[in-house]
Amino acid sequence: MEAIQAKKSRTEWGVRASNYALSTFNPIRSIVDGMKLTPHPDKPMIALSIGDPTVFGNLPVPEAAEDAIIKALKTRTYNGYGPSTGYEKARAAVAEYVSTPTTKVEARDVVLCSGCSGALDLCITVLANPGQNILMPRPGFSIYKTLAESLGVIVKTYDLLPEKSWEIDLDNLTELIDDHTAGIVVNNPSNPCGSVYSEEHLKDVLAIASKFKVPIIADEIYEHFVFDGFQYHSMASLTTEVPIVSCGGLTKRFLVPGWRMGWIVVYDRNNTLSEIRQGLTSLSQRILGPNTLVQAALPDILNNTPAEFFHDTVQYIQKNAALFYKRLCAVPGLKPVMPQGAMYMMVGIDMAGFPEYNTDVEFTEAMVTEQSVFCLPATCFQYPGYFRVVLTVPADKVDEACNRIEEFCKQHFTKSVNGTTEITGK
Amino acid sequence: MEAIQAKKSRTEWGVRASNYALSTFNPIRSIVDGMKLTPHPDKPMIALSIGDPTVFGNLPVPEAAEDAIIKALKTRTYNGYGPSTGYEKARAAVAEYVSTPTTKVEARDVVLCSGCSGALDLCITVLANPGQNILMPRPGFSIYKTLAESLGVIVKTYDLLPEKSWEIDLDNLTELIDDHTAGIVVNNPSNPCGSVYSEEHLKDVLAIASKFKVPIIADEIYEHFVFDGFQYHSMASLTTEVPIVSCGGLTKRFLVPGWRMGWIVVYDRNNTLSEIRQGLTSLSQRILGPNTLVQAALPDILNNTPAEFFHDTVQYIQKNAALFYKRLCAVPGLKPVMPQGAMYMMVGIDMAGFPEYNTDVEFTEAMVTEQSVFCLPATCFQYPGYFRVVLTVPADKVDEACNRIEEFCKQHFTKSVNGTTEITGK
Ligand SMILES: Cc1ncc(COP(=O)(O)O)c(C=O)c1O
Ligand SMILES: Cc1ncc(COP(=O)(O)O)c(C=O)c1O
Repeated sequence: MEAIQAKKSRTEWGVRASNYALSTFNPIRSIVDGMKLTPHPDKPMIALSIGDPTVFGNLPVPEAAEDAIIKALKTRTYNGYGPSTGYEKARAAVAEYVSTPTTKVEARDVVLCSGCSGALDLCITVLANPGQNILMPRPGFSIYKTLAESLGVIVKTYDLLPEKSWEIDLDNLTELIDDHTAGIVVNNPSNPCGSVYSEEHLKDVLAIASKFKVPIIADEIYEHFVFDGFQYHSMASLTTEVPIVSCGGLTKRFLVPGWRMGWIVVYDRNNTLSEIRQGLTSLSQRILGPNTLVQAALPDILNNTPAEFFHDTVQYIQKNAALFYKRLCAVPGLKPVMPQGAMYMMVGIDMAGFPEYNTDVEFTEAMVTEQSVFCLPATCFQYPGYFRVVLTVPADKVDEACNRIEEFCKQHFTKSVNGTTEITGK
Repeated sequence: MEAIQAKKSRTEWGVRASNYALSTFNPIRSIVDGMKLTPHPDKPMIALSIGDPTVFGNLPVPEAAEDAIIKALKTRTYNGYGPSTGYEKARAAVAEYVSTPTTKVEARDVVLCSGCSGALDLCITVLANPGQNILMPRPGFSIYKTLAESLGVIVKTYDLLPEKSWEIDLDNLTELIDDHTAGIVVNNPSNPCGSVYSEEHLKDVLAIASKFKVPIIADEIYEHFVFDGFQYHSMASLTTEVPIVSCGGLTKRFLVPGWRMGWIVVYDRNNTLSEIRQGLTSLSQRILGPNTLVQAALPDILNNTPAEFFHDTVQYIQKNAALFYKRLCAVPGLKPVMPQGAMYMMVGIDMAGFPEYNTDVEFTEAMVTEQSVFCLPATCFQYPGYFRVVLTVPADKVDEACNRIEEFCKQHFTKSVNGTTEITGK
């Protein structure tokens, strides 16, 4: 950070924003705001860009969740301040929800937050001092970087390997750890990759954390959001030694991003996290916890939402994933990577085959201009050469979107000199 | 801030909390947690300590607010992400609500936040760098200090004058301003004082801000919460020159602290706040705004809550204020200061007359032990020698509380040597 910014002159107003604010920077916003997004006038826009499962109206909120809010409101007893970490009952419900046979947590291990973003904010803030570093996946969700950098915390990214379904490059991860590493962010299932890590792979990551004694920040907002044949393992369920703070919430699985209900679960190991626990409580007092109606509704939401609700959502997305994958595999110049969960698919672009465009940003921009289809350029996830497709769209739009993407690529693709399609993620 | 905290050893876990977390410190919590609060076994506890108007159940939420939430929920269109600064419609409704004939603002001037605390957090964060200072009232609400100090921002407190109904000591305020002053927090109506400043006094403060070119953070969460004979003036309505960020919300006037709906209104003057405006937008992207159901309900809540709802609440509190004031004036060793609004009254303690107790903390602790009445020691507001009484309690409890406070003081008060009651606020 810069030195103190003294006011230059007391004779004129010059209200400067702090370095903190100036360095709070959302790459998605700045990239997307910088794009010329002018859809083709004859084609209605299809936005495959927004990670909000509610935008198309095809995936409604669980009725149990609506009922629970109304019930909480009608009792007229949840309008006051709750404890800043959340109501005891709500925290107990989360504890029960995330506990596994091998790993039990209690209400005192849970801190309710304003969305999973709020949970990540608290975790990064409590773990790292300015000048320390935090390791994050690349490609990865951009908020980690936004949060860390504004605090003066250094971001180091470890590579994910598209050819291994986006598993973590363990050697690369190991190399990056140093004396100033305050934590490793692991996002499973993942945005933007849709990867779901095996028990074995997660254990490999935990072994590294254990060897270097670095705690894990597990972003598990897509927990249980996995396709047939895959299984979700919470990181905490696979270790009795590595201290983990897990971030989750209602946002994705319950399809209510706007409700802003997230949580941190502190998986302490031999009291290694007691200072962190205390720090999280202190930090929660800055904004005094999330909305109390949603807090009060939380036990009912978690307990009464039927299994088939989750099943239906995942089936819906899985079907879309298969459709997109099949269609885009056949498109010249594109190389989709089949996801295993979450709600996204990454698609590689053979940039050499599209010489008109220098970057994924220009490529996706042109796709809007000509075809009114908007996919997020993966530069937003620090991974140029790919774009991300959101899988929550209605089925008829998937077809139409694929037709248009195909048309676009057919029009612009020129076989690379050596005749092979090569995707590089750098 | 300290230098980088390197991990001492890679051979053992030692997960330390960041300096930021360790320096996030709520004085109320640490003082109250340090008190021995053991109520008298024969007397049910009366808590006059909690600034939450909902705890006694005597002041219900406006029906219009409940209806608006249910309506928002039933439309099923407000479950997704909103813009991180809030829905345009909700921001427009706030803009209309706070605009005055002389000072009009628009949706773009409003940022919705997670409670007024969230609003204050953003304002302090955007205005001040570590090492700069912010001026705050003493006695004053503790969160300003909590927020500023964790950011490494220096807190300087200016005195309020009990003998002038807690007006600001303007000379003291002026003295404190230096080249590193990034803002002045003015809380009107005030917690813990219940003061409501006149137009003239506020203009005097604005003249100082103008002379030294220091922006104002106006904490106006108790706006319009004023007793008969007093008038509320928003600071922004009294100047066309001084840039102001005003913090408000539903919390107090609409009696829904738990809903966590606050806002910042940016009163820009000749674009002096354009960088601040941008900074607030960036900062809002950290947690992506408050609960969308409450956001969607906001226009209805602000427009449909009847005037008599506010009138009734204020009358109720004003009646309690008069009762407490009359009763406590007659108690030996106490000197209440009549409030003009908000929901609190400060009461001076003639500490010399209570030689058993060294501090207001010991005094209020003993009142719990012997009489089961808990008033917050004003050390919580950096103002030893006073305690604060909350005025939202049901009328029958007021009487009983006064009886017990009277009994306590009669038992412990010893006339001071010179026979006069002297209250010092230092
Ligand atoms: C991986 C990941 N983590 C966290 C979040 C933020 O979740 P919330 O909306 O609960 O803040 C998202 C949202 O897209 C996400 O994809
Ligand atoms: C003066 C003042 N400002 C701000 C707040 C915080 O309000 P909120 O609960 O909306 O965060 C309070 C709450 O007591 C207060 O008294």
